[in-house]
Amino acid sequence: MNDAMNSASLGGPELAEPHLGSVLSAAGLDAEYVRAEGNTLYLRDEDGQEIPVLDFVGGFGSLILGHNHPEIIRYAKELLDGQTPVHAQFSRHPYANRAAAVLDRIVRRETGTDEPFYAVFANTGAEAVEAAVKHAEFDRFRKVSALGEEIDAHIEAARAAVRAGEAAVADGAADIEDLIAEVVRHNAGQLSRPPLFLTPEGSFHGKLVGSVQLTHNPAFRVPFKALAAQARFIPLDQPEQIAKVVEGERGVLLDLVTEGGSVTVVERAFPVFCAFVLEPVQGEGGIHVVGEEFAREVQRVCAEIDCPVVVDEIQSGMGRSGAFLASSLVGLRGDYYTLAKSLGGGIAKTSVTLIRESRYCKDFELVHSSTFAKDAFSTLIALKVLELLEAGDGAAYRTVAERGERLREALEEVRAEFPGVVKEVRGRGLMLGVEFHDQSQSASEVIAGVSQAGFLGYTVAGHVLRAHRIRLFPTGSAVNTLRLEPSLYLTDDEIGRLCTALRGACALIRDADGEALVRP
Amino acid sequence: MNDAMNSASLGGPELAEPHLGSVLSAAGLDAEYVRAEGNTLYLRDEDGQEIPVLDFVGGFGSLILGHNHPEIIRYAKELLDGQTPVHAQFSRHPYANRAAAVLDRIVRRETGTDEPFYAVFANTGAEAVEAAVKHAEFDRFRKVSALGEEIDAHIEAARAAVRAGEAAVADGAADIEDLIAEVVRHNAGQLSRPPLFLTPEGSFHGKLVGSVQLTHNPAFRVPFKALAAQARFIPLDQPEQIAKVVEGERGVLLDLVTEGGSVTVVERAFPVFCAFVLEPVQGEGGIHVVGEEFAREVQRVCAEIDCPVVVDEIQSGMGRSGAFLASSLVGLRGDYYTLAKSLGGGIAKTSVTLIRESRYCKDFELVHSSTFAKDAFSTLIALKVLELLEAGDGAAYRTVAERGERLREALEEVRAEFPGVVKEVRGRGLMLGVEFHDQSQSASEVIAGVSQAGFLGYTVAGHVLRAHRIRLFPTGSAVNTLRLEPSLYLTDDEIGRLCTALRGACALIRDADGEALVRP
Repeated sequence: MNDAMNSASLGGPELAEPHLGSVLSAAGLDAEYVRAEGNTLYLRDEDGQEIPVLDFVGGFGSLILGHNHPEIIRYAKELLDGQTPVHAQFSRHPYANRAAAVLDRIVRRETGTDEPFYAVFANTGAEAVEAAVKHAEFDRFRKVSALGEEIDAHIEAARAAVRAGEAAVADGAADIEDLIAEVVRHNAGQLSRPPLFLTPEGSFHGKLVGSVQLTHNPAFRVPFKALAAQARFIPLDQPEQIAKVVEGERGVLLDLVTEGGSVTVVERAFPVFCAFVLEPVQGEGGIHVVGEEFAREVQRVCAEIDCPVVVDEIQSGMGRSGAFLASSLVGLRGDYYTLAKSLGGGIAKTSVTLIRESRYCKDFELVHSSTFAKDAFSTLIALKVLELLEAGDGAAYRTVAERGERLREALEEVRAEFPGVVKEVRGRGLMLGVEFHDQSQSASEVIAGVSQAGFLGYTVAGHVLRAHRIRLFPTGSAVNTLRLEPSLYLTDDEIGRLCTALRGACALIRDADGEALVRP
Repeated sequence: MNDAMNSASLGGPELAEPHLGSVLSAAGLDAEYVRAEGNTLYLRDEDGQEIPVLDFVGGFGSLILGHNHPEIIRYAKELLDGQTPVHAQFSRHPYANRAAAVLDRIVRRETGTDEPFYAVFANTGAEAVEAAVKHAEFDRFRKVSALGEEIDAHIEAARAAVRAGEAAVADGAADIEDLIAEVVRHNAGQLSRPPLFLTPEGSFHGKLVGSVQLTHNPAFRVPFKALAAQARFIPLDQPEQIAKVVEGERGVLLDLVTEGGSVTVVERAFPVFCAFVLEPVQGEGGIHVVGEEFAREVQRVCAEIDCPVVVDEIQSGMGRSGAFLASSLVGLRGDYYTLAKSLGGGIAKTSVTLIRESRYCKDFELVHSSTFAKDAFSTLIALKVLELLEAGDGAAYRTVAERGERLREALEEVRAEFPGVVKEVRGRGLMLGVEFHDQSQSASEVIAGVSQAGFLGYTVAGHVLRAHRIRLFPTGSAVNTLRLEPSLYLTDDEIGRLCTALRGACALIRDADGEALVRP
């Protein structure tokens, strides 16, 4: 390891998120890792010896090729030796174009479409979601503006026709100016509505929040001004709710039609929904797989209201499901796709938002950018990752599917042995969840206590780290579900070690031996 | 250069922001850079020969140490060879703690405070602003909630006292239930107000927009629900406007005080302002330096209303001004500081939000995180950058100040020679702007045309790239101002070459020779 890392700390208080550190410490999870390779992280013990820890966290899905893959490390060093131009903003980016072309080819192959996808590169998964959200609002804003201008023109035409004595308000209902005032008032109410997003319950799409309203330049700010970005959440097991929610939020603008000497009021659909954003396999939400029926209903309703579907493949993509896109396995077709995590090969920070040509607003390129994005280093690493995944006619995807099946079978055996402890094993490929039954009523006060506090998953994680040198975590929002995302190099031996550790933890939970579960 | 980069493109359309590419092409700025070193980017000509281009863009301020600094490259390769654990989320991060400790020491030294600063690491400048915005709203939300609970308790106490016959509504004004209803109604109106930000006109703080409302988990979502993040913009030359804007948006909650047998209504200040966010030297906005008077007024008003000051040093910090923090040169003291760009040493993607202990909410650590952030590779590179800047008792800062002065003097000479073309030279250290007079009335149709279209700066940039092999750009929002941000290794010869190029462009503009200015 390097000097800077080994040298003594500067003393004084810890300043980089010390509270989180103490929470991890309470669960026995505050290990200090000094080296990483394949599926293994190494911590250093008091004697300075490296202790291997088998890693099933895998950078929350960032390591489909494992820690520090030798070919990626070699290539990264070659790029550094070659003085790759990392900072060359506002120039041609042939490497980014190559990465975009490869991504386009793969996505089109898997989804069976001829339509190209444009690529907006960013640095993190959260930023890729931001780009998708901004682009969707940019598109909606343009539609709303065009609709408003069209209606204004119709109003002027109606007024002119009435004034010229060429038309009258239909039904003899009202004075034209009264009618116009009513139409304008109604429309102003609709136009002031903030956009809405649709997304399943349990979804996770990053933790960033709008800062563009702090940017003074109106060209960057005004189109997104209304983006208060509220979402309507839909239960994954109730696809019929999608249409109900859409109907409940339905809005119309009033328009005037002047025809045959009469002015009549007609309704125009108001596009209040910005996008339907969903993960094909929910990561943070508890490894829930979107079903085919839900996917079909998303597609049907969104087509009806002309709302783009954003498929967030940040965690499930890049081969983790056994296909490049997990969504392709359930026939879910995105207008946008977001990718990140493993795209950076475990070293680089890069992400991308892919947008179908028919949905793509080319002017978006002029209002959205990032200093760090689209750089040679990270897009070339991404190309290397894609090359490794696609090699041998997609051998990597087949390996993920086979290893995932083997891991799932082994976990199912554990579940069968401990039916009162393990509730379900679910997921796709090497993105698997193991859900525990609630233990709030355990005969062990300790186990009941941590369960009630939502810490059962972290307590199990602490136990298997201490007792079995295995690293795993529960999902962030479904705290009784362990999330397993190892690399595709997972061996039978590693699966065996995991299952031994889980059997140990399950036996302690079944036997209500809380003391042994939390023993340091 | 490497294989992947040199190999032929895959054919087909360009998919990575082709529209931006064609805009760059129109200005003759679509160069393809293949290598970078110091202040030089190399493009390859048709014969495969490398052509050096002198780079004054410097990654929009990311390269205070130049492209591919040899010591940083060496260290990055050492980290890769050492199998540094990039993905070890939710573990101890001693390197992040070291980086935080060094940053804390430097910031406290420059701002003369004993109070420590906590560090929240992210990946990009935009993400650091997001963290600041989220943290400020998190803090405001807690204050508002506490105030609401306090008032609710006072209302209950008043109701109980009146029912028990121990108190009566003062002034004999109203029934207690009517009074309570009025107070509740008034307060509901205030509590539903979205938070506001204060920021100078011309400010730029990144281009991300709220996605956390798409995240289902209420613990992550609800505290930021009201974050529609509208800003009130204040002209930099009118510090007196700050107090006026604050007064105009002032809100009060009504509270009940039960004392001496009587219930009276009192006003409580409602914290509607989330934060004052500002750059000490505006980057995108045209290289405008915040003055001491403006800084004092920010501080005075924010102290009065207990509103945090967020100093965005993403572009101006890391030594670029001749001090570590540009804000320290005008006595501006932040409650938060954001840093990015040069923090990554031109290779890594990392950023940080520093928050003063008395403003820091430790629970924020449990609701905000990023898979890619706080990793060993990028925080260790950041430590190396800080080591290089701090070496020799801050020799780097002195060099920046000296080189910046030399560059400014040279630019002032150009201005003196072309008073009808160059309007002003301004900035700090090696963050300088050269503003052109508007040329909309030029006798050259070409020059008048590009000026009217807001493309004068880009046209000059295209000319100096073609004719002088120098790379520079105007600022994003002040399109007649060229922004110069070279590394601290800038030589007298490089300054001379820049001035020769600018003299050439200025002469063409003065002589209204538009044809020569745009000639390919």
